[in-house]
Amino acid sequence: MSDPAIPQLTRESVVAAHKLIEPYVHKTPVLTNTTISKLASIPRTPAELEGTEWAGRTPARPVMRLWFKCENFQRIGAFKARGAFHAIEKLKQTPGWLESGGKEKGVVTHSSGNHAQALSLAAQVNQIPAYIVMPSISPIPKVNATRGYGAKITFSGSTSVEREAVTASVIASTGAVLIPPYDHPDIICGQGTASLELQDQVSESLSSPNPPYTSLSSSQKERSLNAIITPCGGGGLLSGTALSCSGLPIKVFGSEPSYEGADDCTRAYNSHPTDAVRIETVKSLTIGDGLRTPVGKIPWSIIYERMLVSGMYSVTEDQIKSALKLVYERMKLVVEPSAVVPLAVCLYNEYFRAMVEKEAGEEGWDIGVIFSGGNIDLGKLGDLLNGA
Amino acid sequence: MSDPAIPQLTRESVVAAHKLIEPYVHKTPVLTNTTISKLASIPRTPAELEGTEWAGRTPARPVMRLWFKCENFQRIGAFKARGAFHAIEKLKQTPGWLESGGKEKGVVTHSSGNHAQALSLAAQVNQIPAYIVMPSISPIPKVNATRGYGAKITFSGSTSVEREAVTASVIASTGAVLIPPYDHPDIICGQGTASLELQDQVSESLSSPNPPYTSLSSSQKERSLNAIITPCGGGGLLSGTALSCSGLPIKVFGSEPSYEGADDCTRAYNSHPTDAVRIETVKSLTIGDGLRTPVGKIPWSIIYERMLVSGMYSVTEDQIKSALKLVYERMKLVVEPSAVVPLAVCLYNEYFRAMVEKEAGEEGWDIGVIFSGGNIDLGKLGDLLNGA
Repeated sequence: MSDPAIPQLTRESVVAAHKLIEPYVHKTPVLTNTTISKLASIPRTPAELEGTEWAGRTPARPVMRLWFKCENFQRIGAFKARGAFHAIEKLKQTPGWLESGGKEKGVVTHSSGNHAQALSLAAQVNQIPAYIVMPSISPIPKVNATRGYGAKITFSGSTSVEREAVTASVIASTGAVLIPPYDHPDIICGQGTASLELQDQVSESLSSPNPPYTSLSSSQKERSLNAIITPCGGGGLLSGTALSCSGLPIKVFGSEPSYEGADDCTRAYNSHPTDAVRIETVKSLTIGDGLRTPVGKIPWSIIYERMLVSGMYSVTEDQIKSALKLVYERMKLVVEPSAVVPLAVCLYNEYFRAMVEKEAGEEGWDIGVIFSGGNIDLGKLGDLLNGA
Repeated sequence: MSDPAIPQLTRESVVAAHKLIEPYVHKTPVLTNTTISKLASIPRTPAELEGTEWAGRTPARPVMRLWFKCENFQRIGAFKARGAFHAIEKLKQTPGWLESGGKEKGVVTHSSGNHAQALSLAAQVNQIPAYIVMPSISPIPKVNATRGYGAKITFSGSTSVEREAVTASVIASTGAVLIPPYDHPDIICGQGTASLELQDQVSESLSSPNPPYTSLSSSQKERSLNAIITPCGGGGLLSGTALSCSGLPIKVFGSEPSYEGADDCTRAYNSHPTDAVRIETVKSLTIGDGLRTPVGKIPWSIIYERMLVSGMYSVTEDQIKSALKLVYERMKLVVEPSAVVPLAVCLYNEYFRAMVEKEAGEEGWDIGVIFSGGNIDLGKLGDLLNGA
């Protein structure tokens, strides 16, 4: 990492974050699902690969045992609560913050999504004012949900220039501290705590008398978590997860929608083995609406420059819809489209599947899959699923 | 119970059933939700009671801590798997059944709902043929789901006479044993096992270092499960639950939709304190499609004649929709409309709420709520919720 302003984050940074936020966030459950793991372990047919970049290839034969970390059950319905609570705990520890009236001045961010609600909740719990800058075209339910956590909302235009100008003026008039959605060490370490819990929960379950997936395991060899795959938008969750696994024999993978170039991190990551350049602009309307952002500078430094992520994979809109349908029908869980992008990779991306086959062999892998959130417009779910 | 053909079922019958089916069914999780429990513990406003049978009454002030038993996570997506696996285990134990070719002759039922899928799965796991009689107007997805478990489907007309005639002819030609959906001791005891687990799971959680709902508890007195409320269609789940609590200080309540008279059990139950007569016909198209059936003879004998159920309550279609929306949005769970009828009673039925206030006082009650299933046409969810 070349930038001296970025502290050298480690697994210990994530462990420390977890201690700070434990009283405020849910330890969300980890679920398993035999049907979906079996589906992921069936080779796709040559017909299914026709018309794709894998046409004519021999379908991969990976064995996957999937462990779903249900951050859709997290406070505000998404993992973002972790980063927001952590950022505020760190703020409270900052020398001089309290004395200079920091608690009265509050915090500010620009977001219309889960980070806005997360920061609003964390601020409310700590009795700190929260200022949220939102595009004036934001859906009313999102505005109301954020307001429901007591935040003061200021509307802006939709471009990043307009948004940043309004944010700057809020800061000038209030003295609030900016808490960005992902490009910040405290946010990254907070998001990584989900994978820290996942590691422990899988270990516990595997050492229980009847561990899941014995039917999908080919030997009596001791099993442990082999990999974790997360969605990647701004990269806070993915880079935090990577930190949480650093030094451990657990590989970390990222996933993105390919629609309209939302796979910026995948494209950059794969463009050069050692000297790739981060893509800084994305303009995509993928249904994975939490993943429309380009990956941030600090996340990129962890994901690519420090090589803590072992691979990036992308999926199509139809594949996201199919995975979404599967989770609703077979797991009975409400998840948002962004949340199922990692599962879609496990099910449909032949590069990922061939890699698992090669690395894991017949033994297979136990793979942690982060369901990042469950905030979805249910009125539109029918249209989404009918298209699948 | 006057009918000597009905064995005297007890809590022990349910405990025995649980031992038999444990290897085949999921021990589904019990979830809590602070937001929904707080909502249930806020008095309704006088305005909300206008235009209802409670207009002008002082709104009740109950304190409720709700524990949700998630049978939507059960195999086939509903508690019905419990009764079906139990019926087949009992069949396997029946003297002479195997010797007379019972395993080849198989089992039969008439149902287009969860019982059809449950019996098909239980039969498939035991390598026994299953014959399902379904109305020819059944939705294709339900037909396919049942076929997916290997069942042989025979179509019939929609009336009970047509249905029973076809069932009789299947029995005549195959020798299959009829496993009815609810009016059978083995089915009832199987369904009761969900509440048996719920009792243990709540006790465990309440004796953990940080039990849920301390903020909704007014004293340091030791808490325990005070009541369980379930949906009531044919009454298998409700009567099984009542058996599972008999002899314990846990009250059991039933709930039904009031739409087009689907509240047959509630109406009969409340018609006379000791000498009520079961209502044998119901013709309702309530959205709680699992609850369109009149309560069965054996369930009624347990619910009313043996007085093992302490009260019956009903809710409107709009109240079911509101509860449904709440569960999707706040709990991120996929449940079917029938499953949220008990929650709707907790939230909206002033008779129930006033009873809890009176019985529980400021102390409040810990109430088990059975989410009976999660099999819903997701394409129609938007329409359902938009009406809420």
